[in-house]
Amino acid sequence: MRRGIFLGVALFFNLIVSAGNDDSLAIRRMANEVLGAHAAYTNLEYLCKKIGPRLSGSENAVKAIRWGMKALKEAGADTVYLQPCMVKHWVRGARETGWVKTGTGKSAQKVSLSLTALGNSVGTGEKGVTAQVIEVDNLLELEQLGEARVKGKIVFFNYLMDPYLINTFDAYGEASNYRVLGPSKAAKYGAVGVMVRSLASNVDTHPHTGVMFYLDSFPKIPAVAISTANAAWLSKILKENKQVMAGFTTHGKMEPDILSYNVIGEIRGRSKPEEIITVGGHLDSWDLAEGAQDDGAGCVQSIEVLRVLKQTGLLPERTVRAVLFMNEENGSGGAKAYFDSAVAKKEKHIFALESDAGGFTPRGFSITATPAQMEALQKWLPLFIPYGLYYFKPGESGVDIDRLKKTGAALAGLEPDSQRYFDLHHSENDVFEAVSKRELELGALNMTALVWLVSKYGLN
Amino acid sequence: MRRGIFLGVALFFNLIVSAGNDDSLAIRRMANEVLGAHAAYTNLEYLCKKIGPRLSGSENAVKAIRWGMKALKEAGADTVYLQPCMVKHWVRGARETGWVKTGTGKSAQKVSLSLTALGNSVGTGEKGVTAQVIEVDNLLELEQLGEARVKGKIVFFNYLMDPYLINTFDAYGEASNYRVLGPSKAAKYGAVGVMVRSLASNVDTHPHTGVMFYLDSFPKIPAVAISTANAAWLSKILKENKQVMAGFTTHGKMEPDILSYNVIGEIRGRSKPEEIITVGGHLDSWDLAEGAQDDGAGCVQSIEVLRVLKQTGLLPERTVRAVLFMNEENGSGGAKAYFDSAVAKKEKHIFALESDAGGFTPRGFSITATPAQMEALQKWLPLFIPYGLYYFKPGESGVDIDRLKKTGAALAGLEPDSQRYFDLHHSENDVFEAVSKRELELGALNMTALVWLVSKYGLN
Repeated sequence: MRRGIFLGVALFFNLIVSAGNDDSLAIRRMANEVLGAHAAYTNLEYLCKKIGPRLSGSENAVKAIRWGMKALKEAGADTVYLQPCMVKHWVRGARETGWVKTGTGKSAQKVSLSLTALGNSVGTGEKGVTAQVIEVDNLLELEQLGEARVKGKIVFFNYLMDPYLINTFDAYGEASNYRVLGPSKAAKYGAVGVMVRSLASNVDTHPHTGVMFYLDSFPKIPAVAISTANAAWLSKILKENKQVMAGFTTHGKMEPDILSYNVIGEIRGRSKPEEIITVGGHLDSWDLAEGAQDDGAGCVQSIEVLRVLKQTGLLPERTVRAVLFMNEENGSGGAKAYFDSAVAKKEKHIFALESDAGGFTPRGFSITATPAQMEALQKWLPLFIPYGLYYFKPGESGVDIDRLKKTGAALAGLEPDSQRYFDLHHSENDVFEAVSKRELELGALNMTALVWLVSKYGLN
Repeated sequence: MRRGIFLGVALFFNLIVSAGNDDSLAIRRMANEVLGAHAAYTNLEYLCKKIGPRLSGSENAVKAIRWGMKALKEAGADTVYLQPCMVKHWVRGARETGWVKTGTGKSAQKVSLSLTALGNSVGTGEKGVTAQVIEVDNLLELEQLGEARVKGKIVFFNYLMDPYLINTFDAYGEASNYRVLGPSKAAKYGAVGVMVRSLASNVDTHPHTGVMFYLDSFPKIPAVAISTANAAWLSKILKENKQVMAGFTTHGKMEPDILSYNVIGEIRGRSKPEEIITVGGHLDSWDLAEGAQDDGAGCVQSIEVLRVLKQTGLLPERTVRAVLFMNEENGSGGAKAYFDSAVAKKEKHIFALESDAGGFTPRGFSITATPAQMEALQKWLPLFIPYGLYYFKPGESGVDIDRLKKTGAALAGLEPDSQRYFDLHHSENDVFEAVSKRELELGALNMTALVWLVSKYGLN
């Protein structure tokens, strides 16, 4: 990699920073390392293309764990270890099929649907489920229909991600209720199956899976997501016809929980090793694609934090721990194990940062902290603006680290630009090619800078 | 399009805004229109897929002009007209071929290069150019080599876009000197041809074209861009071999300047129609791809500004003029004609905004203005932050509107996130599919808001 005039500038920075008096110059050194070596991008390519989908409990998840250990060692962690955790073990089985019957008499025909079983869902059995399908646009409507109209039918939840919300995660949060709890809500009134409109910002033919949970009080009925294009079409068909039959066959099965691992790499703090800073993403992914944005990106960015601290010699005063969490997608077994271990060992966690919103261009950090901690963070903002990150704002951090707030740690979530995430999320579109090298790297850089600042100054 | 609870909110906003007391609510109405109708995205699909590449002087440019008039009328412009301009008319001819010979004796073989003629370049003639190739990494090195080493050779400018610059336009600005002026610089010392490394942030096999200009004092030698992957490979080959032969055949020809048009649509200002606000992008594109990000995006966003003002009933106090400029890529004939007309007609231009940096997620506005105007703009910043736009900063606006600063108008350029632009720019990758619907729309929204605020309050 040729550096032209900037190599000279970088060397100049090295000299200055040795004097230890300017955080902005230290961050410029980190930037040169991240943007020159392309290690996060190279790691992501390997994880996506050589391993691929890695649902908890799968063989690929085991391969990903082995890869994670190797990658953390190569990044320069002084300790790398596995942390056992029990995880959900859902198995999709054969790919699903589904159809809708349109027309009547001689003009009747079956039209195939582009669909996928929801994660954790029971299968239909070989015979599949066949029933009249009814559209329900929200939960209130479901309650109004009641058992009289719902019993024996397939409920089609056609709730759109709200396009008027600027941050797409807000729309996702609202709409995901239908995917996560819709099946049990419909089962309450006697539905025999559920189709949900895929949670996607765009209209295309790819179904998006994702987790669902059964409520114990109702029968477990099979549930699928259909593509947004299919959902729009089906809604139209239902408006034009009194009675529409549909069916699908799925093979999902929940096996007993299984032993798996979080993968952890540490650089021991120089002066306060007992104070722990966690930076992480989740290693498991859904099984339809490569899990590039969700959340291979967060994993390779977390590994990159260690590598950059090591390569630049900007070693942390406090212990920095990169954690590749297992089982974020359908059970949080890894997050529970990490928290339980922290409590059992009486570890002193001061800060945790998660990247689980994609490897898109970084915009800000979402912070869970005391007002004093928030004030300390805000003072650092000018150091981040040159790298495209413009805010620290109160908000949630990430599913894998959220429990750590009980330890008193301040929490942060990287907020990349959200506009493209739900075009890809949990679908076969979530592949390496859809990640921008430079966007991924700028996320890693801003994460490294924040971790390093906290490691240097603490956060009290 | 179902709006769920937000339709109610939007209606509520309509009522409030009728009272005329809150700009933030007006902008929310604009947002609902942009994010619900998807008109900019639909227009872009048509321009890219039904028309496609549209280099100045080509048949497709004529089709694009017709399309632009229709689109502006449909958007609700009260006047739509063509503004004549003379434009460059460069014709590529047949696609280029090129090769490098590696090895010697029996192991010698020709390896094909992925290359494209630079815009405005002369062709080689049917026989092509064949010569020893030498790598030059910067202009100083070229001067040091001098005529003794350069004469009769093909000069390979292998200047990388600097990856350490955070805004990729800064790296482009620096590196583009080699593409624009490199051929004449090399001809000065007797080179017979030039290959430049494509101006791209990534390493792939697609060559990126772009404009070059010959200096009158030196012979006009043919020039091509080779893909970044080829450039990296060729550089390696040159280090391993004393003498490497290469050749290429190109067919470019500069025809006489030709009559073309800017396409203009206006909404006449209600109270100060004589004060003009320009919003624009450029309609021409390079001939290798669809010109989706460069600059179909800027065109459809400018059209969207008019459509949204009309649809929401937020009609401007000053005249708002959407301009689809012709010939930005290789001559600026449209920009000159627009400026000359403004001067000849003694028009009062108070503000101009260009979008010519891609339809990516908007980050800020780059401003050329007086301190007082800048202060006025900064006061509006809180209105933009909810829509993801975080700054107004001093800087250049856009090639098509830059001349208007001589009229006293304040100028602005939309600054979308820059990280992905040069993966696509001027190459066959610049297609509709690489544009995110929501990112494009957020750009259009922020442009509409700024134009509307200036139209309401002026900018003095």
